[in-house]
Amino acid sequence: LKKKFGILIIGARGHLATTLMIGTLAIKKGLCPPTGMVTALDAFSHLNLTPPEDLVLGGWDIRAGIAPGIIHQILSDIGPINRRDLDYIENALDLISTNIYPGTTLNCGQAISELADPKITTQSQTIKEIISRLQRDISHFRNRHGLENIVVVNLSSTEPLLPGETSAITLDRLTQIIENNEVDAIRAGTLYAYAAIDAGCVYINFTPSASAMVPGLITLAEKRKVPIMGNDGKTGETLVKSVLAPMFAYRNLSVLSWQGYNMLGNMDGQVLSNDSNKSCKVKSKDKVLSKILGYKPHSKVAIDYVPSLGDRKTAWDFIHFEGFLNTKMSLQFTWQGCDSALAAPLVLDMVRLGLFAKKKNEAGLMKHLASFFKSPEGVNEYNMHDQFQMLLDYANAHRSSDFQPSIIQLKKAN
Amino acid sequence: LKKKFGILIIGARGHLATTLMIGTLAIKKGLCPPTGMVTALDAFSHLNLTPPEDLVLGGWDIRAGIAPGIIHQILSDIGPINRRDLDYIENALDLISTNIYPGTTLNCGQAISELADPKITTQSQTIKEIISRLQRDISHFRNRHGLENIVVVNLSSTEPLLPGETSAITLDRLTQIIENNEVDAIRAGTLYAYAAIDAGCVYINFTPSASAMVPGLITLAEKRKVPIMGNDGKTGETLVKSVLAPMFAYRNLSVLSWQGYNMLGNMDGQVLSNDSNKSCKVKSKDKVLSKILGYKPHSKVAIDYVPSLGDRKTAWDFIHFEGFLNTKMSLQFTWQGCDSALAAPLVLDMVRLGLFAKKKNEAGLMKHLASFFKSPEGVNEYNMHDQFQMLLDYANAHRSSDFQPSIIQLKKAN
Amino acid sequence: LKKKFGILIIGARGHLATTLMIGTLAIKKGLCPPTGMVTALDAFSHLNLTPPEDLVLGGWDIRAGIAPGIIHQILSDIGPINRRDLDYIENALDLISTNIYPGTTLNCGQAISELADPKITTQSQTIKEIISRLQRDISHFRNRHGLENIVVVNLSSTEPLLPGETSAITLDRLTQIIENNEVDAIRAGTLYAYAAIDAGCVYINFTPSASAMVPGLITLAEKRKVPIMGNDGKTGETLVKSVLAPMFAYRNLSVLSWQGYNMLGNMDGQVLSNDSNKSCKVKSKDKVLSKILGYKPHSKVAIDYVPSLGDRKTAWDFIHFEGFLNTKMSLQFTWQGCDSALAAPLVLDMVRLGLFAKKKNEAGLMKHLASFFKSPEGVNEYNMHDQFQMLLDYANAHRSSDFQPSIIQLKKAN
Amino acid sequence: LKKKFGILIIGARGHLATTLMIGTLAIKKGLCPPTGMVTALDAFSHLNLTPPEDLVLGGWDIRAGIAPGIIHQILSDIGPINRRDLDYIENALDLISTNIYPGTTLNCGQAISELADPKITTQSQTIKEIISRLQRDISHFRNRHGLENIVVVNLSSTEPLLPGETSAITLDRLTQIIENNEVDAIRAGTLYAYAAIDAGCVYINFTPSASAMVPGLITLAEKRKVPIMGNDGKTGETLVKSVLAPMFAYRNLSVLSWQGYNMLGNMDGQVLSNDSNKSCKVKSKDKVLSKILGYKPHSKVAIDYVPSLGDRKTAWDFIHFEGFLNTKMSLQFTWQGCDSALAAPLVLDMVRLGLFAKKKNEAGLMKHLASFFKSPEGVNEYNMHDQFQMLLDYANAHRSSDFQPSIIQLKKAN
Repeated sequence: LKKKFGILIIGARGHLATTLMIGTLAIKKGLCPPTGMVTALDAFSHLNLTPPEDLVLGGWDIRAGIAPGIIHQILSDIGPINRRDLDYIENALDLISTNIYPGTTLNCGQAISELADPKITTQSQTIKEIISRLQRDISHFRNRHGLENIVVVNLSSTEPLLPGETSAITLDRLTQIIENNEVDAIRAGTLYAYAAIDAGCVYINFTPSASAMVPGLITLAEKRKVPIMGNDGKTGETLVKSVLAPMFAYRNLSVLSWQGYNMLGNMDGQVLSNDSNKSCKVKSKDKVLSKILGYKPHSKVAIDYVPSLGDRKTAWDFIHFEGFLNTKMSLQFTWQGCDSALAAPLVLDMVRLGLFAKKKNEAGLMKHLASFFKSPEGVNEYNMHDQFQMLLDYANAHRSSDFQPSIIQLKKAN
Repeated sequence: LKKKFGILIIGARGHLATTLMIGTLAIKKGLCPPTGMVTALDAFSHLNLTPPEDLVLGGWDIRAGIAPGIIHQILSDIGPINRRDLDYIENALDLISTNIYPGTTLNCGQAISELADPKITTQSQTIKEIISRLQRDISHFRNRHGLENIVVVNLSSTEPLLPGETSAITLDRLTQIIENNEVDAIRAGTLYAYAAIDAGCVYINFTPSASAMVPGLITLAEKRKVPIMGNDGKTGETLVKSVLAPMFAYRNLSVLSWQGYNMLGNMDGQVLSNDSNKSCKVKSKDKVLSKILGYKPHSKVAIDYVPSLGDRKTAWDFIHFEGFLNTKMSLQFTWQGCDSALAAPLVLDMVRLGLFAKKKNEAGLMKHLASFFKSPEGVNEYNMHDQFQMLLDYANAHRSSDFQPSIIQLKKAN
Repeated sequence: LKKKFGILIIGARGHLATTLMIGTLAIKKGLCPPTGMVTALDAFSHLNLTPPEDLVLGGWDIRAGIAPGIIHQILSDIGPINRRDLDYIENALDLISTNIYPGTTLNCGQAISELADPKITTQSQTIKEIISRLQRDISHFRNRHGLENIVVVNLSSTEPLLPGETSAITLDRLTQIIENNEVDAIRAGTLYAYAAIDAGCVYINFTPSASAMVPGLITLAEKRKVPIMGNDGKTGETLVKSVLAPMFAYRNLSVLSWQGYNMLGNMDGQVLSNDSNKSCKVKSKDKVLSKILGYKPHSKVAIDYVPSLGDRKTAWDFIHFEGFLNTKMSLQFTWQGCDSALAAPLVLDMVRLGLFAKKKNEAGLMKHLASFFKSPEGVNEYNMHDQFQMLLDYANAHRSSDFQPSIIQLKKAN
Repeated sequence: LKKKFGILIIGARGHLATTLMIGTLAIKKGLCPPTGMVTALDAFSHLNLTPPEDLVLGGWDIRAGIAPGIIHQILSDIGPINRRDLDYIENALDLISTNIYPGTTLNCGQAISELADPKITTQSQTIKEIISRLQRDISHFRNRHGLENIVVVNLSSTEPLLPGETSAITLDRLTQIIENNEVDAIRAGTLYAYAAIDAGCVYINFTPSASAMVPGLITLAEKRKVPIMGNDGKTGETLVKSVLAPMFAYRNLSVLSWQGYNMLGNMDGQVLSNDSNKSCKVKSKDKVLSKILGYKPHSKVAIDYVPSLGDRKTAWDFIHFEGFLNTKMSLQFTWQGCDSALAAPLVLDMVRLGLFAKKKNEAGLMKHLASFFKSPEGVNEYNMHDQFQMLLDYANAHRSSDFQPSIIQLKKAN
């Protein structure tokens, strides 16, 4: 009998989660190739990762349903779809919907609470009770579908920074917080992560929320023999930054200023228009430059909510630099990306690689996933190329001895 | 007694050569740091390369003098310069001018010939006589300044493609062409290179001219134990391309179209506005994408001459790509670089590394210089990051055994 | 009984024509407002123009059907459409299809002929026979639907320039060409226009084809008391140019260079990738700057075919200018427009204004439509603002005497 | 004897004032044409305005001297200047320096006070005493140079908004404030303006400071028969906005979002990096769109201080708009302007036109100068084209009766 595996998504009714679900279904139906999935490259074919279409999908959310019209929008670049395929996708989505459990908004800040179904926000449960509830959901999902392993992925909105120092939340402190029900010391994101890791699930924090990757969670993962990784999926401006900034370093060109102006129109943008939520995101984006360049140029990352853009994120970066004879020059770029379409395949990649790591009995931080994140936990490498090499090296280390690395291995599998 | 080294520049009165000369003088006077020089990075400090300010400068040109006002323009970003320093630079340039010999326009095409001093174009010498003359210039320069070694660098305008197959010009065929004075089979660029290599000089082809790097020249270099490399310095749009294109490959994003529109206002732009000269350049820029991506997207590199820009090159690139669920997205960038300020320090880098290779008795193609070129001769690697790693590996191979590579090594030396 | 009016579109199966048809139907069904229609502004409400949804649509084409998937694409920004509305649109399009007659490819150049249904290109008819056939189509359409008046609009692909001087094709010469069946002296576009005007139809040349607006056609329009206008709908880069260039004139800033790089992915782009067809287009775009600035700056309009863009045209313009103390500055813009969505409402505007002019017994060139065209026939004004004022003045001249012009009149009617 | 006229600049040691001074001298020496001056257009030649080189320059400042290297920077695009001409400019600037009086920092906010010479900020004078002192400076300047008339121009840094309603500061209230020495109710900018107008000087507020154009000052100007105008010189992003926004209105395209991101590196940018000073600027930029479009789209104007840019302001605007069939499209532009080089000639224009108005005994608001300002006082027209027409109409009204307006009149006079 074929083994089955599941994903539980925190934020399962969001645009990104819905894109992931529809994409998985569309690939299954042959409506589109797995473009955008790193693990679909030839370089990873020998790992025999779980096909995305074999994953059972589910999760939690604080909202009652998805936005109307979202399916139409997500499928719009596929071209005309025949009635039968559309029906299939709609029915399959309904089925997945039965795997979506009510989430928690515990101390996740006003910007997020406002989006929640009143039924959820009015619940009054202790931290312990919430964790138990989430773990019952995990068991229910596991048993219902007979799953070998589950990956829990955090795709929810960015939470505000924790009130105190994130580094102070060790496992001992975390246990104490849970015991004493110190609700203000943690956030919803901490609870999902705790519940997942404690229940033996692989855990991925795709958000910038520091609350969802406190040191205590990493220690717990090591204890429970669970692979985890975060934070903040690298899908847009920061991705470009992490390939472009090395150019200036290699050529000894002095970056004077690097200004970035980001416009987002989706729920992510709406939540980030709240300053306390934005601080977490900006902090995550900010390290990249100084780590790659070796010095800190004048730099600012501005983020604005522009509703008309929807999921089509637009970012403009201006790089002012100095060369020979102090000559001032500039490079500017405009990135027009579809946030969810860029993020969804990376989530699938990490789910597949997380399940692989679990099978290989690897535990703790999956540092080889650094290239997927803006702030790779426990990794000091921010140059995209060196990060990608870490991933290739990992894949090659799991290859038989007669391996010959070459440029050809990058060619698309589809 | 300190050993002395020289550079002979083909195109010594051009904007790039003049920038190189002024920059060397300005660094010597402490007016600016060596920003833009790769070999000024910490990663190369242990090689003890010849300081640029110790090089004796000279060359050939087909024009009688430099453009008026060019010194002012090249120094404009330095800030106000005191009278004494300016006088020093002007006098030193006059002195260098006595090291500039008349060049040759043999079969270099109408666009270039038109720029030449009539005294040069009306000369009628056989190929053999020209080569002898150029080698007498080299000897004269060597003896006059007591030079240990000389690097000849081709910074002249792009010549038209050769009439036949470039690959057919082996050393035997080249010898035959010289013997029979088959003037139409080669170009001026071939003669300079032959003269230089045959006289034991390190040779760098910074231009896209295929005529200046025919196979016969490489064989000759191997025979004469001379290090050489080319072609076409990578300073602008292609540089950005070679760091950006890998991002699409790493992420399995499908590049649909990559259009580049380049505007140049200097002599280079003027010569390239001639279609036969342009073809050589476009060919050189064209390979990068397909080599990095593993497939050939719809792509075009357009080049226009826009005189008002002067040396300030402006390029706009538009990249149309497809991701998950066939979602179409785009990235565009505008590069506003000062061509000579970007190229001059790279020439100094390669001169220093060329002299180093010569000292180490290395001969033939210096493949570790691939990152400096759009079309690195004999190298199949076009990803800037992997090319740069080749250079670091070379530097490290010449390091003592206790070496610890780290990100810190890239920090600027100044 | 309500009077009925018709449009016959040359190029009726093209993307633009199909967008016009679908848009008219969508407005009728209330799926979208008439955004993009100039005549929907308050400033024109007093003219009581024919509502677009009351127009009967038809035309000619050389192709057998529209591209598959085109309806999906044109409706993609509307959001999800319910099944009944979609069925309505598809059925109505089928009905319109019965009003589409086979066109002619007489001497319209290889790039266009290649697109044609073989049944059409293999026809051998004399000029006279073709004109008769086209006029029979007009009569058939008129009688079938009981139409009061018909507007013929040229939306076909750009034809190559005429072999001789366009200005030489007076009405006498045109008559002679028809009599002698001098097939090489004119093009398909000339025949449609002749047939339409001669049959008393209002005529609009929305294309850059000079062949479709030779002087003889204007004389014929004056004789037949028919309002006509052209050439080349102003929908993208040139539109922006015609509002931006005046800024430099007003401020006495000296434009040094204005470079435009246009990428088109639709049929229009494909036909324009043929150099002989492109020349007509570039010529039409080229006049704008010198007419507005009063001098001719260095300028180039490059056009490339980039299939992946489809109907989404992207243009990048770079304007280099000089101000006080010779200071050099620049402005660049990227226009990402949907060609058909921009053009279709303008066609509807001109059809409505053409029918109005006909009703008012106006004949010959409708110069007040200058703002709609890149090369407004018979008009020397290229500043968009002054052109738009001409249209407002025309509308106001048809207003009762108590009219008070104000900014409010521009507010959107929807 | 020839009549003489003077300018007194508030902020006379700033970059803009220095550019104005150097530009006037350079034009006098024939080093550059009067490019960028609107009044140098043919359309204004019949007004016989005072030549800029005949103006006597002076002013006030709170700093002791200009920034070192500023002359070099301002002249950098002129090309190489011979020693004699440079000496002339430096000496003439020294002479002008003797016409620069100490300013006042009364209640102008921390960001500005910090820039001041300590000698100035430590002064403790009543409002009345300061006004008297400023008027003694005016008399001294007038008598020293035998001036017929003087224009006072406010080019100082943006002050914070007034604590109360600007509209409440009528002339009566202003008199009361002065009598009672209510220092907190006004700012330095109010005092300069009061002193100037009360002393019969033409007054121009080129800054966004609301404090420098309270209603009481306008009433005073009417009483003293003095022409005045403001506010906030239109030189960059807003200028482009005021020519581009009409395009969307004319074409009935619906602007969904208009986001502007401005980077400034000069003193202006530094002062604006203080939030209380920025608010005045943003308010001034914000009205333009809604006034032109007739509705208020989602819009934001962000301003950041980027020191490396110096006086080279860079702004990126992104316009998201909707057309036919709800199709979403976009336009983006990058403006790279030199702030002072754009503003200085406009100041000269308004000085010339102010002196002309004074000669013609015109008093109060010079509404015909609307095109020069972001927030033209007393004018409801924000479309640049209609504003420019107001200026042409004014010039034509002062023309003899045989005037024939034409496009040719715009051609540059130089």
